[in-house]
Amino acid sequence: MSRRPTAAILVTGSEILLGRTQDRNSGMLARSLDVHGIRLERIVAVDDREEHLRAALSDLLAGGYDLIVTSGGLGPTHDDRTVAIIAGVTGLELTLDEDALAEITAIVTGYAAQRNVPVQQLLPGARKQAMKPVGSHVISPAGTAPGLIIPGTSTIVVLPGPPTELADVWQRALTHEVMAPLLGTQLERRVLRIWNTPESTVARVFEELGGDDHGTETSICATRLEVEVVIRFAPAARPAGTALADGLITNFGDAVYAEDDRPVEVYVVDELERRGLTIACAESCTAGLVAARLASVPGASNVLRGGIVAYANDVKVEHVGVPTSIIETYGAVSAEVALALANGARRRLNSDIGVGVTGVAGPGGGSAEKPVGLVHLAVVGPHSTSQVLERRFPGDREAVRINSALAGLHLVRLLLQDVRLSADV
Amino acid sequence: MSRRPTAAILVTGSEILLGRTQDRNSGMLARSLDVHGIRLERIVAVDDREEHLRAALSDLLAGGYDLIVTSGGLGPTHDDRTVAIIAGVTGLELTLDEDALAEITAIVTGYAAQRNVPVQQLLPGARKQAMKPVGSHVISPAGTAPGLIIPGTSTIVVLPGPPTELADVWQRALTHEVMAPLLGTQLERRVLRIWNTPESTVARVFEELGGDDHGTETSICATRLEVEVVIRFAPAARPAGTALADGLITNFGDAVYAEDDRPVEVYVVDELERRGLTIACAESCTAGLVAARLASVPGASNVLRGGIVAYANDVKVEHVGVPTSIIETYGAVSAEVALALANGARRRLNSDIGVGVTGVAGPGGGSAEKPVGLVHLAVVGPHSTSQVLERRFPGDREAVRINSALAGLHLVRLLLQDVRLSADV
Repeated sequence: MSRRPTAAILVTGSEILLGRTQDRNSGMLARSLDVHGIRLERIVAVDDREEHLRAALSDLLAGGYDLIVTSGGLGPTHDDRTVAIIAGVTGLELTLDEDALAEITAIVTGYAAQRNVPVQQLLPGARKQAMKPVGSHVISPAGTAPGLIIPGTSTIVVLPGPPTELADVWQRALTHEVMAPLLGTQLERRVLRIWNTPESTVARVFEELGGDDHGTETSICATRLEVEVVIRFAPAARPAGTALADGLITNFGDAVYAEDDRPVEVYVVDELERRGLTIACAESCTAGLVAARLASVPGASNVLRGGIVAYANDVKVEHVGVPTSIIETYGAVSAEVALALANGARRRLNSDIGVGVTGVAGPGGGSAEKPVGLVHLAVVGPHSTSQVLERRFPGDREAVRINSALAGLHLVRLLLQDVRLSADV
Repeated sequence: MSRRPTAAILVTGSEILLGRTQDRNSGMLARSLDVHGIRLERIVAVDDREEHLRAALSDLLAGGYDLIVTSGGLGPTHDDRTVAIIAGVTGLELTLDEDALAEITAIVTGYAAQRNVPVQQLLPGARKQAMKPVGSHVISPAGTAPGLIIPGTSTIVVLPGPPTELADVWQRALTHEVMAPLLGTQLERRVLRIWNTPESTVARVFEELGGDDHGTETSICATRLEVEVVIRFAPAARPAGTALADGLITNFGDAVYAEDDRPVEVYVVDELERRGLTIACAESCTAGLVAARLASVPGASNVLRGGIVAYANDVKVEHVGVPTSIIETYGAVSAEVALALANGARRRLNSDIGVGVTGVAGPGGGSAEKPVGLVHLAVVGPHSTSQVLERRFPGDREAVRINSALAGLHLVRLLLQDVRLSADV
């Protein structure tokens, strides 16, 4: 396998250096570069000062990357100076791109009309945004800021900072002919997502299967309640990649729940819709997180009936129908209450599937018998099918609640997989 | 004002470079550095390869920062090599720290007993983790990995990668005497959070008030539905800082909703608890997000009764008591339905305050009259107090839903502020 192209990302934004906003662009770009077979080796974030941007860019040019992608600093005002600094550092003259000027002028003329401001105010900014280093290629803007591809020993791709604009311009840049040599080594990928299995176990099985000894390149990454395995390989190593993936699937069986990047809620909503089933939730400690994650999927309204956030015990009794005696006998955080919540959600909201969650999210409210992090979950479906789970989640209140919601979604998935096996639904 | 100390952060982690996990450490460190008057100038992330880590560290040492903070690569195995690489790049010998060895050995002995593995398996790792460059100071571990402070032209603080361990060890490092000279210039801060006001308006008023001409250093940062202003100043510039903050408060009045870093849900839960009021929600497009954000605050169980996720129209009717005629006359996404949801939540769940949200989250379901992003919100309280809001949020489904939930929380805050003005509650 020939050497893979290398890349670095340069992000600008004072708010990131102050810790006030999180850089969302580099993660998106990182995933896209990986898909296109480019090895991302460094991400650098600097504030908006000219000397900092210049120093970081010089370091990256000295690093010999095949590709440098920059994010931000393309606005119409004088303190957006990414293009001028790149021109300075690379020694390229700035020149006006007439086509870009026409395109941006048309866009800002529309803005001016909408907002009822004189277009003359916006034209100097448009002219500034249409300047490019000699020999570079303009990528049409998603907002007003066009992107640029600057060929050289390191190809520099210049992108606007707003995440949706960046994503659009980046997709267009990828299709530009000058990018083709960088993308020639695209690798095939197998993605396996394994639920409820320790990362160390996955890593051990991976090594027993021979690891990356036969030309594959694999990452094993643990996130909440799941381990994600991405196996990358050139066509010549396809047998090795396939053997690895199949070996993991054989080993982990039903714990391998997806072979793509879909979050579990997308899987669940798609599967419910495909089968014409509906769902409702009754949530205590998660307080709406399961319903909200289901509703995050476009088209959820076809399957999600709704839910009850049963935080107070009398809401569990009155609005979900949990018998007071069960709460008194077993406590609000118990398998029995989780099951009663699931059954109540299903019955009261007239859905095919019901989800119940109850737990001790902390930091207060724990006891020796029912410690912080203890969560009971239940999912009930047609024909008396059900799934129950008791877990003790580590971490803080947020971690316990997010992991509980995720576990609830996985229980629905497990129920759907079981239901699939029976012939009569 | 003397020159502020400068800093850079070096994060290691292949998963970050692959875009599979997000770096959460640098944001936390960035905020802490800012609070301690240190100017963070660069954040660098590299994968776990030795040559990449070495090159990035060399670049940062050449950058002349007063402080370099590293995150990750301190584990017990051979592929955790941050300390060895720092020793190599700085030319310092590695030496065993006997005290650290004793501390780590005690920790892993405890682990071994808990997990029933022979402690001998863990001792080589403990010894590896107790190695330090000559002249450096060990910071006690939160897990098994101690931190290090390595004095020099650039002071290097070496921290473990897991976010909770990193936060703990960083807090301890800050109190070490060798850090004192770096922290001597701590600045005072005024934080103002301004709701529902364009960033450009805040920036204009800030400039009209004289901006940073008198020794202050201000950042203005727009996030969801709010603009956050942080004014930093040395004691000598306190009058200027105070004048700026007071000027902004005078200008923006009730839109300035907080003078600290508390999220709005913390403000709301604290205020409800202080006044002994309870709350319930009936949510359509947000599908539980408002309730879940309230429940994210420790102690929410004292004020949150619960909620109803009224996704399907018949759930709105049957479980919240929204009259069918209102849905038929005005449509499910209407001010009237939002108000009926809020009143229904309050009445059905027997709370003091009710929240209602209904909207078109998209991408489907929009029309010319009711486009994607249109959201109606209502909050009702004691004595017929109420707040209503109609907004059209830009962005995708996720943005519309998150902003809607946030707007709902702000409406509760506004209601509480109004209620506070009347004498009889």
